[in-house]
Amino acid sequence: MLERIDGPRDLDALTTEELKRLAAEIREFLISEVSKTGGHLGPNLGVVELTIALHRVFDSPRDPIVWDTGHQSYVHKLLTGRKDFSELRRRGGLAGYPQRAESEHDIVESSHASSSLSWADGISRAFARRAQSDPEQQDRHVVAVVGDGALTGGMTWEALNNITDDNDRNLVIVVNDNGRSYAPTIGGMARFLNSVRVTGGYRDLQEGSERLFGALGAPGRVIYRAARGAVRGLVSRASDNQDLYSNLDIKYVGPVDGHDLEAVEEALRQAKGYGRPALVHVITEKGRGYAPAENDLADQFHAIGQIDPDTGAAVNGGTGPSFTSVFGERLVELARDDERLVGITAAMLAPTGLDRFAEEFPDRVYDVGIAEQHAATTAAGLAYGGLHPVVALYATFVNRAFDQLLMDVALHRAGVTFALDRAGVTGPDGASHNGVWDLAALQVVPGIRIAAPRDEATLRELLGEAVQIDDGPTVVRYPKGAVGEPISASRRTDDGTDVLRDPAPGDSAEGAEVDVLFVGVGPMNRISLEAAALLEEHGITSTVIDPRWVVPVAASVVEFARGHRLLVSIEDGIRVGGVGTRIRQALRDAGVDTAVSELGVPDEFLEHASRAELLAEAGLTADRIAADVIEQVRGTKIPVARPR
Amino acid sequence: MLERIDGPRDLDALTTEELKRLAAEIREFLISEVSKTGGHLGPNLGVVELTIALHRVFDSPRDPIVWDTGHQSYVHKLLTGRKDFSELRRRGGLAGYPQRAESEHDIVESSHASSSLSWADGISRAFARRAQSDPEQQDRHVVAVVGDGALTGGMTWEALNNITDDNDRNLVIVVNDNGRSYAPTIGGMARFLNSVRVTGGYRDLQEGSERLFGALGAPGRVIYRAARGAVRGLVSRASDNQDLYSNLDIKYVGPVDGHDLEAVEEALRQAKGYGRPALVHVITEKGRGYAPAENDLADQFHAIGQIDPDTGAAVNGGTGPSFTSVFGERLVELARDDERLVGITAAMLAPTGLDRFAEEFPDRVYDVGIAEQHAATTAAGLAYGGLHPVVALYATFVNRAFDQLLMDVALHRAGVTFALDRAGVTGPDGASHNGVWDLAALQVVPGIRIAAPRDEATLRELLGEAVQIDDGPTVVRYPKGAVGEPISASRRTDDGTDVLRDPAPGDSAEGAEVDVLFVGVGPMNRISLEAAALLEEHGITSTVIDPRWVVPVAASVVEFARGHRLLVSIEDGIRVGGVGTRIRQALRDAGVDTAVSELGVPDEFLEHASRAELLAEAGLTADRIAADVIEQVRGTKIPVARPR
Repeated sequence: MLERIDGPRDLDALTTEELKRLAAEIREFLISEVSKTGGHLGPNLGVVELTIALHRVFDSPRDPIVWDTGHQSYVHKLLTGRKDFSELRRRGGLAGYPQRAESEHDIVESSHASSSLSWADGISRAFARRAQSDPEQQDRHVVAVVGDGALTGGMTWEALNNITDDNDRNLVIVVNDNGRSYAPTIGGMARFLNSVRVTGGYRDLQEGSERLFGALGAPGRVIYRAARGAVRGLVSRASDNQDLYSNLDIKYVGPVDGHDLEAVEEALRQAKGYGRPALVHVITEKGRGYAPAENDLADQFHAIGQIDPDTGAAVNGGTGPSFTSVFGERLVELARDDERLVGITAAMLAPTGLDRFAEEFPDRVYDVGIAEQHAATTAAGLAYGGLHPVVALYATFVNRAFDQLLMDVALHRAGVTFALDRAGVTGPDGASHNGVWDLAALQVVPGIRIAAPRDEATLRELLGEAVQIDDGPTVVRYPKGAVGEPISASRRTDDGTDVLRDPAPGDSAEGAEVDVLFVGVGPMNRISLEAAALLEEHGITSTVIDPRWVVPVAASVVEFARGHRLLVSIEDGIRVGGVGTRIRQALRDAGVDTAVSELGVPDEFLEHASRAELLAEAGLTADRIAADVIEQVRGTKIPVARPR
Repeated sequence: MLERIDGPRDLDALTTEELKRLAAEIREFLISEVSKTGGHLGPNLGVVELTIALHRVFDSPRDPIVWDTGHQSYVHKLLTGRKDFSELRRRGGLAGYPQRAESEHDIVESSHASSSLSWADGISRAFARRAQSDPEQQDRHVVAVVGDGALTGGMTWEALNNITDDNDRNLVIVVNDNGRSYAPTIGGMARFLNSVRVTGGYRDLQEGSERLFGALGAPGRVIYRAARGAVRGLVSRASDNQDLYSNLDIKYVGPVDGHDLEAVEEALRQAKGYGRPALVHVITEKGRGYAPAENDLADQFHAIGQIDPDTGAAVNGGTGPSFTSVFGERLVELARDDERLVGITAAMLAPTGLDRFAEEFPDRVYDVGIAEQHAATTAAGLAYGGLHPVVALYATFVNRAFDQLLMDVALHRAGVTFALDRAGVTGPDGASHNGVWDLAALQVVPGIRIAAPRDEATLRELLGEAVQIDDGPTVVRYPKGAVGEPISASRRTDDGTDVLRDPAPGDSAEGAEVDVLFVGVGPMNRISLEAAALLEEHGITSTVIDPRWVVPVAASVVEFARGHRLLVSIEDGIRVGGVGTRIRQALRDAGVDTAVSELGVPDEFLEHASRAELLAEAGLTADRIAADVIEQVRGTKIPVARPR
């Protein structure tokens, strides 16, 4: 069947039986292909029927479908003509998220949750407005597909408050409710969804005779909550209207079994027909149809590496401990000795390594949902109350809490530690997963201190140092993946800078200038050392230091710079406004005129590829750096154009 | 009475009559004092009884009171021993917001709305946790006072979702419902609050015989919604639980007349007694008791300058058109010719000048509530749908939408214009109102273009240029206050840089180097010109240019730099990571080794004072800049320490 589908409209003529065969083929395809490349298997197995139904009921791209955290868009890709998954998430292959460059059917590329309702709000308002003067724009619909977990994000509340305020447009919100985001969804709303799932019509439907309900046809298998009142939305009952957060005047259809293709279609058609905003509540199972995923209660194969498709067992397993696991272990150790330490996660307990902490200290960890803003500000409150919170996030998601980190944490000098995993270039997940903005954005926060561990030992010690600081925000940021071999220091300055390499004694006389001072951020120190070794072959002397705390700039960095002709800073964050610019300011403020070459990631969004490929493209390899330094040091003058 | 109150506990012994006299005295005091200094008069007149009741029922600071957008904290200041309002919002005088340095009764200083519930969530969790081992911490309560308008912010949803998930702490949320934030509150929730206000018990209470209800005493004058069910919160009706956004398991008391002191006290005592999170819905009137404010339906004297206390008329009125009014007028002009232009505001239609647009094009403006995240993302959706949105915000509030501007607008190259008012140092409103982070934070957004008009004419033309750009985000940022005298240019380069001053022809031969190139951001060009004039007196030649578009760096800036010994960039944003650092990178990339001195605001939070005072402290005056330049140009070497 799949071979016959080159676009959504090829679905129109298929019979129910054919559609079911198609769904089965898609599942086989996903299991077979994603097991080879890795990717988001579980979520996509859960939306096979939903995606087919969406593309039958709506006319993409005329009716845009917005996928919230688009890792659930694999089936959508398949149905819109993209069937070569062999290079999924690799350079030149399909992206793991929607990508406009791939298809006009893709709208939102970002992997940040809870934004789809705002997108759909804007798109539907634009269509409604343009339809007034342009017949071509009439009867266009917009669909937002959002997971139940993403509804914990405040953006969805902001959007719903607007969507329900203006009913004159075609907007369908599909809540894909699998009862879990990365982890079981928390909070009051999760309790509501649960109550719907286990009570009332839906349970009856599930427990009742399939034959009986089957006889009713698809309409009978959808619970029409909207039909109970004449115009009954989430709350239209003005007579009993006491709910502060519920006067959301929106049509509500559901719940419906998300794997009952006909019923889902029926529900979507019903919602589409209203001609005003409507919400369809679809209940799905993550990992549906793949036994190893269904049996994995922890995360149902949310995101996998390469696996054996028959057993689900990982292929090419560990490469030693990861920064994530070291963080998780170390925090537990620290917490045993310090009762004030508490952990905060934004719906990512296991991915951030905080699960170990939660196991040992279940009452000292707060999973706030996908709510980074709240995570930062509640941490400020916890600190005011006498505790020291550690907020564990992916680096890319701290951008969501920029204002709260600035205004609630820093302005109030709250002792809060942010542990930022996946900092720097991450790669395969594409532009929006890269943690390349944290250094540049957060260094403008007055009083902030940012540490960048280079290996396991420095992560352990820097986390320990950070949680001792109670008069302002601290950040410990580290990359995705294995900690790698230890990088030892020959000595440490009084203010904490590690000297990783001294210039060879013979190369420079006492007091004489050394050619190059490398200042690396975290894992970039490995590249500094490699570059220094290459330079030595060319008779260029260099010192390699790791300040460990990269913001503010340590006095020792300025002092080292005095004795060098060229300072090369290397960060795996965006070069514009990065730590390198701050080092240069510190030098100027101290009257040190050593030339500075600040290296970092270019000022652009990076397409999906491996971390190594992206760093190489940015010129952040030892070879390229050494070549550039040679040109500068040997050249007629030191200040020259930067690579790339 | 007021004389006898030096702290909250002095309220305990007062009789009801005495408390009423106190309330009257406080209103007289506020009207008399704030009319001299300017400040947030209306909001504080609305919370006189509420604040007295809070301080009688709770034991601040042992029970912390968190004020959301603390401009409503004047009465709180009075009751906690701060009665000298003569220098309100001036250097050395009382801050216009809570300030920890002033009093242990102050908790949250930031003026950014919707954060108080998250603060209270964290503080109450910390108290509950510490109470397990420390008897001193037991029975501590936390109160968050939040306006109805602030509830449109997504943070409150994130917080409530957590607060209702963990009931084992003492937390009281007071919704101070005056039916308006800056403007009438929008959205589905506003409709709910309205319905409560005008229906059911509250209306009966208002319309019924005062004598009758009076006879019932304070308890009779509180509507106990919580009492209707056994344990009935916003929604505890499991049997009828269909509301996606309403399963907030929290006790609800109210509504209560916020000017009925006894009733408010009764409601607060009731809420305090629950021993779990509770919400008290208090209905107040902004501007209560001051006829000019009560009669001002537009904003009820939300924030005023100096006024005549008897009439409410402004003293020391206009100083010519403001950047705000010019923006508002110009946008209307542009919109007449371009149907694609639509306006977005986050609950600040009039303060941002968008009210004129709304008058002429009521169906082309969207007030999304206090919801900057949604504002940015819905704008991306509108742009996808074929329109060009102009999002009008205060510069300090764009920080709330950093992630959305990066991930939704910029990543998708959406043609959205952000008009940032109150950019740069604003002054009297204190640290959190200053718009000093926008340049540094936003310049790390790939593909962004940032314009900084220097006067009326450039604001008009830059706004016109910005709305023509449809392939990525544009920012037009301008300061608070009057546009001032025009600053004319002698010529404009092909890429749009204005030359404001050429070096005097006699001072430098053709092709010879000029001493100094000033590159100013927006209003800082005025200071550049003054500094250049001072330098001329010392025989130092200088060119003054205004790139107008300051990000990315124009090629012409680099070309000008080639012919100068020292480039001085001046911005009224934070120097760390600022535009100056980017100019220097552009020079290096082009192989231009002109020395660069980048001037800006220091890396710290600025205390409240006038803009002029703060700029002077930052060294951003013509005198100081000229002196520094002389030292650099005449000194032994150009790179020297920067001022301050």
